[in-house]
Order: sequence, then structure tokens, then C-alpha cells
Amino acid sequence: MSSQLDQLCANTIRTLSMDGVQKANSGHPGMPMGMADVAYVLWTKYLKHNPKNPNWVDRDRFVLSAGHGSMLIYSLLHLTGYDVTMEDLKNFRQTGSRTPGHPEFGMTPGVETTTGPLGQGFATGVGMAMAESHLAAKFNKDGYSIVDHYTYAIVSDGDLMEGVSHEAASMAGHMKLGKLIYLYDSNMISIEGSTELAFTEDVKKRFEAYGWHVIEIDGHNHSQISSGIEEAQSITNKPSLVICKTKIGFGSPNKEGKEESHGSPLGDDEIVLTKEVYGFDPEKKFFIPDDALEVFRGEVAKGATSEAEWNANFEAYASSYSDEAASFTKWMNREISMDLEAALPKFEVTDNGPATRASSGKVINAIKDVVPNLFGGSADLGPSTKTDINGEGEYSAETPEGRTIHFGVREFGMAAAVNGMALHGGVIPFGATFFVFTDYLRPALRLAALMKAPSIFVMTHDSIGLGEDGPTHQPVEHLASIRAMPNVTVLRPGDANEVAYAWKVAIENTSSPTVLVLTRQGMPTYERTDANSASLVAKGAYIFADSEKETPDAILIGTGSELHLAVNAKAELKEKGVDARVVSMPSWDLFEKQSAEYKENVLPKSVTNRISIEAGSTFGWERYVGAEGTAIGLDTFGESGPAEELYEHFGITTAKMVEAAS
Amino acid sequence: MSSQLDQLCANTIRTLSMDGVQKANSGHPGMPMGMADVAYVLWTKYLKHNPKNPNWVDRDRFVLSAGHGSMLIYSLLHLTGYDVTMEDLKNFRQTGSRTPGHPEFGMTPGVETTTGPLGQGFATGVGMAMAESHLAAKFNKDGYSIVDHYTYAIVSDGDLMEGVSHEAASMAGHMKLGKLIYLYDSNMISIEGSTELAFTEDVKKRFEAYGWHVIEIDGHNHSQISSGIEEAQSITNKPSLVICKTKIGFGSPNKEGKEESHGSPLGDDEIVLTKEVYGFDPEKKFFIPDDALEVFRGEVAKGATSEAEWNANFEAYASSYSDEAASFTKWMNREISMDLEAALPKFEVTDNGPATRASSGKVINAIKDVVPNLFGGSADLGPSTKTDINGEGEYSAETPEGRTIHFGVREFGMAAAVNGMALHGGVIPFGATFFVFTDYLRPALRLAALMKAPSIFVMTHDSIGLGEDGPTHQPVEHLASIRAMPNVTVLRPGDANEVAYAWKVAIENTSSPTVLVLTRQGMPTYERTDANSASLVAKGAYIFADSEKETPDAILIGTGSELHLAVNAKAELKEKGVDARVVSMPSWDLFEKQSAEYKENVLPKSVTNRISIEAGSTFGWERYVGAEGTAIGLDTFGESGPAEELYEHFGITTAKMVEAAS
Repeated sequence: MSSQLDQLCANTIRTLSMDGVQKANSGHPGMPMGMADVAYVLWTKYLKHNPKNPNWVDRDRFVLSAGHGSMLIYSLLHLTGYDVTMEDLKNFRQTGSRTPGHPEFGMTPGVETTTGPLGQGFATGVGMAMAESHLAAKFNKDGYSIVDHYTYAIVSDGDLMEGVSHEAASMAGHMKLGKLIYLYDSNMISIEGSTELAFTEDVKKRFEAYGWHVIEIDGHNHSQISSGIEEAQSITNKPSLVICKTKIGFGSPNKEGKEESHGSPLGDDEIVLTKEVYGFDPEKKFFIPDDALEVFRGEVAKGATSEAEWNANFEAYASSYSDEAASFTKWMNREISMDLEAALPKFEVTDNGPATRASSGKVINAIKDVVPNLFGGSADLGPSTKTDINGEGEYSAETPEGRTIHFGVREFGMAAAVNGMALHGGVIPFGATFFVFTDYLRPALRLAALMKAPSIFVMTHDSIGLGEDGPTHQPVEHLASIRAMPNVTVLRPGDANEVAYAWKVAIENTSSPTVLVLTRQGMPTYERTDANSASLVAKGAYIFADSEKETPDAILIGTGSELHLAVNAKAELKEKGVDARVVSMPSWDLFEKQSAEYKENVLPKSVTNRISIEAGSTFGWERYVGAEGTAIGLDTFGESGPAEELYEHFGITTAKMVEAAS
Repeated sequence: MSSQLDQLCANTIRTLSMDGVQKANSGHPGMPMGMADVAYVLWTKYLKHNPKNPNWVDRDRFVLSAGHGSMLIYSLLHLTGYDVTMEDLKNFRQTGSRTPGHPEFGMTPGVETTTGPLGQGFATGVGMAMAESHLAAKFNKDGYSIVDHYTYAIVSDGDLMEGVSHEAASMAGHMKLGKLIYLYDSNMISIEGSTELAFTEDVKKRFEAYGWHVIEIDGHNHSQISSGIEEAQSITNKPSLVICKTKIGFGSPNKEGKEESHGSPLGDDEIVLTKEVYGFDPEKKFFIPDDALEVFRGEVAKGATSEAEWNANFEAYASSYSDEAASFTKWMNREISMDLEAALPKFEVTDNGPATRASSGKVINAIKDVVPNLFGGSADLGPSTKTDINGEGEYSAETPEGRTIHFGVREFGMAAAVNGMALHGGVIPFGATFFVFTDYLRPALRLAALMKAPSIFVMTHDSIGLGEDGPTHQPVEHLASIRAMPNVTVLRPGDANEVAYAWKVAIENTSSPTVLVLTRQGMPTYERTDANSASLVAKGAYIFADSEKETPDAILIGTGSELHLAVNAKAELKEKGVDARVVSMPSWDLFEKQSAEYKENVLPKSVTNRISIEAGSTFGWERYVGAEGTAIGLDTFGESGPAEELYEHFGITTAKMVEAAS
């Protein structure tokens, strides 16, 4: 059971949450009210954190997967002494505030990941726990548990209905992530009403089937909450799900246990009634009893002590294991070796060069020593995506130090886990699959973009060039649809050496996810000079082969496997007396970031005879070819057949380019 | 056990599949070889089908969710007498053939749905079974089981790893779909190797947790296969999963049980060895023993008899229940009532009109009687998406005749199920959620587009106009990213009366999915004349308010909730002496389908002063505003705050439009 003081503390979370939502006249009070007891116990008795340093590397990670209950975490952050002020709470959901409608990473100190789109917090937390276990295996030594923290999450009915929760839970069970502890707010209410309407599975049995340890408790009973968390901590070879039976809108005389408390303010009258139930003064808003504040603010001193102990331990570690300590610091700061560029392979010039997926595989293995924290794998397509990190072992429960991850056929779960690893820090994570399955992981790509998380996605088999697998596997609109997404760095390199520099961009990128778009099929590897150095990939577009005239008669723009079609077209056009420039354009977004002068130099406005070629949708290419230009591409679905035949069939050819430019 | 003849038949499937893949030099032989026994037993002893009429309405539906094993179904179709010739088998994976790399609906008689992207066949089948149960409840009478068929699928390890399998399985268990029977090819092999690498969950326990009946059998033992299917048929209040333990590449001396047999041809030498194991002449390719053919072709006569019996039964039904029989025929033929247009509500002119989600809800309820087979619901957002069909009951195991579906928080599962319902026929299905969650269901939208399946998706809360929920819930790039997808009809209506006609387009559309993109917030409802009739929505774009001059000084293009900003800008510009035209452009794709003349009439090339306004990414708008025009929109993520403030903050305003046009 719980003391009066404990009740007061939990009710303080409730009243702050109710008041915040009411003042904003928008939001979700029911969940914070339902989970206040669990959150209170977790945050004041178990969570290892330092409110004055939310970036302490060995803190426990806490994810509010049910992000709509954002007032819960904002209340906790304020109460336990993070830099979240009362003013911030009062500005809940206001333009420019640090307390947006759903928790946003980078916006509010103490928010570990952006949540709201259901299921993703669940899967992102799994990635955090994976990073923890990998780093622990890499760095911990006898007597020195430098990396040793839990990953907690509060998850909801909605989270568990989403497919990504299945993928991530099955993965976490397989990986035996013993330090993953999820608290499931089982309140039996969703937006449309009782969960009986649509959600009647046996959650306990389901999670046991995944290999989780499952505990059931009364989510309003503080001693059960404590024993549930302690039991979960004691199980070190399985993730734990603590099923907390709760009442949504707990304490509200008219809305407890009802969907009405889920997504709308309770209303002033109901708030008065509810505060009376709690024994709070109904007249006071955003009121924090001194006794409660004292309990919560105890976290400040506890947190300082925790971190100081860790620091002392780390110093001792550093004196015994100086190399490891230095590496650990570099990894956690995402310091990139100065040797990265030197380590990039130089691919030989050849007409029959490798597929860009193959050169990517070579790059990964060439840089694995200078980027020792590169850590990733594929959604059961490693042999196809060429993303295995050779000789470095496979990440598993038994060998968490292994660097190649088997994510299984779980693209969305993989991508969300990659985000979690990127947010955790210490590793430079990547995930790989076929480019067409960007669709499967798109919601996680979007959250990475929104969070500025440096997740890397290696997407191969990027066009009809994959051939016989047919239209279900042939991307068409995928380039357009990810280029349209804000803050994603998309690169489709045009030969093997562009691949090398594309990887450099990805590794060095710390402010957005990077998507590498790579071919199944081979293509030429080109001669390079200073003028068309493959390092120019970083500028997004560059003059690959210039006209003899200062002002070209035509500009031919190619990306990826179609760059060589543009190069061939230039040669044919020359015989026809058309003096064309070839522009390689691996990345629209990087090009857009260049100076107006650079852009004008590459694509001078005066040249309106422009032809682009790309084996994908022409959607958006008007931006670069203009009203008088021609975009050659594919605006229908593909077909099943040998790749070369498909290029001919769909008219993505040098001949079409020559015709358009003449 | 199985007779020699049974073995011969199963091995015939195997040898055809091996030979098909080898000839194409591309494909997946291992799965057809592993599941040949199961498929043979199902198709010749249990499947109710008529090879000479693949469209017989009461046939069992068969879904090869593991679509990479396409030679399995092509072999079965040929052997049992469908219009799939030996020539077709020999043309496997060739350009223009009817036997593409993965099964494609509409390409090959007998293929019920396109599969390949894993997990989707599983979920699509659930939709087929939902449609069956709904139609059965609507039409069956004592003694007349007009609608009474099973939905079978072969599903793989990969299918079960995908999150959508979780969503659909949980849904199917909840809905107690007793006539859903899935045969799980448990071969313990995926592309990267043993499923032990990434997939160690207890599938039996997991599916029992969902409320399924689970049976385990040896997938090479014909009597166990039979008893497994019969047991599944006997369980009428739960879906059944028959776990078939199989060996991938069964019979291949060197590749059985290995990932090498999964995704590449076996090779000529191994085929010789394998045919010797089967007792087949290793020299013969695409060989069908006469005895085996006789067994398989027995399906032709059986199928004719089955359908004839059904026809006789239906005639008797029609004489007792003539109205129902007539309705049934109309429903199955997707005949739309001539009264649809008359039933559309006429919304009154007002400055403070409803949100388009609200008018959509009114339209749904106004047409529910003239479109009695409209059947759908929301992914736990009914109160927000306004998609409940009032007074018509809720679809559930107990009330399958109900028309409002509670899909739960399962966007992808919902969309795939909607596809399954559309493919099944008889119902006009829709699914609804927030527009930002297009990302969650995108893979199913793509398959609908590829299949030309008339699924309807109602996507509300379509921009920063949703306000406080913030950037996780505010679509930005979503319009661009679905406009880029081939064969999707996307409509973003600009007032309530446009919504009515947008629904008419959706209902009448039989060749593509339709996405209705609707607002959270209110907007004006406009006066209409013949010249700007809301019925012009069907043309994609039209002159909403013309200039006085024949050639306007400017063209202002608006969509959805921004149409009224363009209308206001026209008025302000007029005071400044600029005589502008307003074009309402609810649908790019419908506009692109109009004649060149119509397009030139709406957007004359001579007018280059063009401004578009839309609260979303400007990506792609160059197509309509041209190099000299201005696209007003939002190319970053949104923010959490009141909607009106956000419009100001991001500059999506009449003032910006006026400024750009002046």
C-alpha cells in the first residue's frame, strides 16, 4: 500500500496534468491520472537519473511511449528538478513552448525520444537497450560497470495494438534484453471506448510467447508497483512487462474509467470535483504541496550522488583501462576519426563496376576499424544488402559485442530500434533493407527526421534495375516520397567512389537521418579528377563532365545507376554537335543547402535545355529541369523481367536522353 | 501417410517449380518444394474453386502470402486447369508474361491478391474473411448459405515476423473469424540463415494469445495435412493456424533445409540429383506425369459441379428471396445506385462551415441507404474521423451484419484488410485514420494502387490545422508522397460540397484506391453556380472564381482548407487592381487525366503569375506554378500550438498570397 505522502505525491502529478490540459484547452488528462502512481514510484524510488544533467551517459532511459500523456512526463520533469519550469507547464501546447502536445526530443530536457505515433516509443526503447548491452559488452571490465542502466517505458493499449510493438517485442525477447522494463498501462479504454471493442488478446500470454517475463500488478498499489519493478530488475535474461491494471482518469467522479477522460480536458467543474476527491484545494491551480515537492526534489541530490559515484568509478576505470576509457568518451561524443577519409576505398575505373550495394559493403568493411562504433545490420537481407560487418561477430544475447545485427523481417521495428540506438549514443547505428520497404519503415524515418537523429538507412535494390522480382519490389515513387520529407539526407550515389563519399556524409552527419539509396545492378566506375572528385557528393550535385563551351548547349542530370546513361548521352550528343554538361546529382537536399552561387554555377539559369534521368518517378523533377526541360523516369509501376529489358521497355535510355536534348 | 500417386502429384509441383525458377534463372524454389505437400492436399481435397471460372463469387479464397514462392501457385493453377498455360510457366519472370516474379492480382487468373511484400497477404486474407462473414450475415437465410466459403493462406516465417501479421491476427482473433484457415510454412529458414538468428518466439502460444486455434502437423505427411485442415474447418468460432513443419527445398540432396534453396535457382546439377530423388526422369523439364495430371485436372469437373450446385441453390434462393438475391447480385457487381448523386447532402452557404471531416461524416450517413454495401470504420479514431455509420450496428463476431468496423489502433492491418474486402467484392470498404498515419498504412496503399483495388481511405486532421497535437501528428510531406504514388486517386476537397462529390468519386471509382484528405478545422461553405459546381471535383481542378478579364492577371490555386485563403486573396488583389482567377484543385491525378484543352482552359500557359497555397510541402508544386510562380506551403515540420497561430507562424496566409501575386 502507500503512505499518505505517497498519495499526495501521485495526486500532485494528477492535478498538474489536469490543470495543464485544462489551461491549454487541449490534451489528454486520463493517462497521466491513471499512471501517476506507477510513474511516481518509478521516478522517485528506482529511476537512476540526474535532473541537473539530463545527458549523463549512464542514466536510465525513460520512454513515454504513450506520448499523448505528455503532461505526465512534463509534470515529472518539473517536480524532480529538471529545467522545466512552472511557466513551461502553464504553456503546455502553446506555440514555441518547451511543452508541446507530444514529447519531443531536443525540445525538453529529460525527454529521451519523441513519441506520440503509437508503438514507436516501445520499439525505440528496444534500440536503447540494444545499444546499452552492446556498449556494456565492449567497455565493462571486472569491477567496472561503466555502462549499466535500465531502459524503462510506459506503454499503452494503443502501443500494443500497433504492429511495431510486435516486431520490437519479438526482437527484444530474442535478444534477451534483461534490462528492458516496460510498464503497461492496462486501462481497458481506447478512443472509441472499451478495449473490448477491438483488443481482446491475452497480452500476458503473447509476451510470454516472445520470451518476456510478465508480471501483473494493481497500478494504483504502491507496494505492488515496487515489487513489480524489483522483480523485473531481478530477471536479467529476459525483458520484463509489468502489466499495471489502472483506471484512466483515476479519481474523477464522473470520468474515471471512461473514454471521456482520454483526449479532452476534464472541464473546470470536473476538476473541482476531482481535486476534492484527492483532498486538494479545488480553487488552486498548478498547486504543488510543499511536502510533495520535497519528496520529488530529493531526486536532485540523489541524482548528483549517483553521477558523482559513476564519475569516480569511471576515473578509476580510466586509470586501469586508459585506452578503453578514451574510446568510450570518443564513442559517446560521436567523435569521428580523422582517418575516415583515408580509409575510404578507392575503386578502380572500369566499365563493369560493382553495384552500389556491393561497393557499399566494401566501404563498410573498409571503415569498420576507423569507425569502431559502427553497428548495424539488415532486416533479414544481409546477403542482398551487403551490410554484414565481417569478422566482427554477430550481435546476440550470447555475443552482445558482435557488430552485425540480425533484425529479422521487421523493417519498422529495425528502424525504430536504430533510432533508439542513435538517441542512446555511443554507437553509430544503421539498418538495411530493400528500398521499396522504405514504406514499411517510413514512420520511424519521419521520427528520426523530426528528432534530428543520425540514424543511417542502407536501402538497396533501388529501382526497376532489380528486375525479375517485379513491381512489388521495384521502387518508383520512393525517391520522391522521401525527398519530400523534411530533414532527411537522401543520397543516391552514381558510382562506387560516390558510394564511398556518401558513407562519409552519413557517418559525419549528426543532425538528420541519412538514407543511402543503392542499386542491385552493376554500373561503371569513373575516372576522377579534382574537378569531379567523388568527394563532391557532399555538395549534393556537381559538374561531372563539363561542356567545352562555357555555356553548355544542354545539361544532362543523372543520379545513381542512370548517371552513366547521361554520360553516354553526352558522348552521343557531341557527335550531333550538341555540347552538353553532365551533372551528377546524388542528393537534392544537400544541393539545396549550397550557396546560390554554387547552385547557379552547376545549373545556370540561362541553360533551359535540361534533361534529367532517373529510374523512378519524375515527380518533383520540374524543380531542376524547369518548364522547358524534360524529366525522364517512370510514373507507373514497374514490371517483372530482366533489368535491361525493363530499362528499354520503360524508355529509360541514353537514346531517349539524346532525343530530348537534340 | 500418402499414396505413391499423392507423392507423384506433390513432386510434380516441385519439379515444375524448380524448372520454372531455373529457366528464369531467378526466383525462389525452396518454398514451393517445401509446401508442395500441403498445397497439393489443400487444392485437390479441400479447396472449393472452379478453375474455369476463377470469379465464381462463392469460391474459397486462397492467398499465397509468401509471394516469393510464386511458382507454387502458378504450378497449381496450371495443373488444376486454370487459364495458365505451360507456355506461361516457361515464361516465368519474363517481361510481359502472366507469371511475374511475385503473384499479381489482375495479371493471372486465380491469383486473388498481389503478394510479396511480407505480411500483407496475411492481413489481406483477414479482410476477405471479414467480407465473407458480413455478407453471409446480410444474405444467408435458413437453408440458403449463399455466402459460405473459407479463406485460406499459406504464410511464412517472414510473414509472421512482420508487424502487420500481429495487427491482423489480433483483429481476426477478436472477430472470431472461424472460416479463416492459415497454413504456416514453418521451415526454420530465412534469407540470412536459420530462423534461430532472429525469430525464436513461440508462435503457437502467440496465436493462442490472439484467440486462434492452433494445430501442429508434419507438413510432409498427407494424412496429417488432411486432419489438420479438417480440424481447422471444425473450429467455427476461431481462426485457425495450422503450423506445418516442413523442409525448405524438400528432396534436394544438397540444399534441403538450407537457405541456399530459398532465393536462387537450384542449378542444373542439383535439379538432376533432386529429380532422381523424386524418381523423375532428370532429363525431362517441365514434365507432368499423366497420372498426376489426371488427379489435378479432376478439379475442373469438381469445380463445375460445385458451382452448378451453388447456382441451383442461388436460383432457389432467388425465388424465395427475390429482393435479397437482386441485391446480392448488385453488390457483387459493385453496381452503384443511380440515386447516389441525389442522396448527396447539399451543404448551406456559410462563412463558418464544418470541417471537411465533419461534412464527410454527414455524407457517409446521407448515402448509407443508397450505398447499402458501404462498410468500414476507423483505427480507433471514429469519434475524430467521423466515420461511424450511424444506426447500422457495429461489426463484431456477435453482430457481423453491423456496418461500422472497429479496427483498433492498427492502421496497416486495417488498410490491408480493406484491400482484402475490396478484392473479395460485395462490399465497398473504407478505413479511416489521421492523415499523418498514411505512413503507417502506406505499404497497403501501394498494393491497392498496384492491384487497382477500389479501397477507400478517409484521412483526417490533414495539416498543421490540427493544432496542438504538434509535429508528430501534423502531416507535411504526406500529400506529396501519396501524389507521387502511381494509380492513387487523392482528393483534398475545399469545402463541404466538394466533400460530397469527392465521396461520389470514391464510390464510383473501380480502378484505384481513393484517399480522401480532410481537415480537423472548419472552413467556409461556398455559393455554387453551374460554372463552379462542386461536381467539378471529378475533374481534379476547376475555375472556382474567375477573373473579369478573359486572361487573368494571376491564377491563385488552393486546395482543401486553403481554398478560402485563395478566395480571400482574390478579393484583396482586386482592390489592388489585380484581376485574379481562383482555381480549386482537390486532385492532381484527376486533373492530369483531363484533356489538354481542359487543362489549358483552367491553367492557361500564358498566365505565368501563379500562386499555389496548401498547408503542406511545396514539393512538386512547380508542375503547376511554373518557374515564375510561387508555391506557398510548409517545407519544415510543424509545431504544437493553436491552429490559427500556426498558419500565421508559417506564413500560410492570404497576405502572403497577395504579396506574391502583386
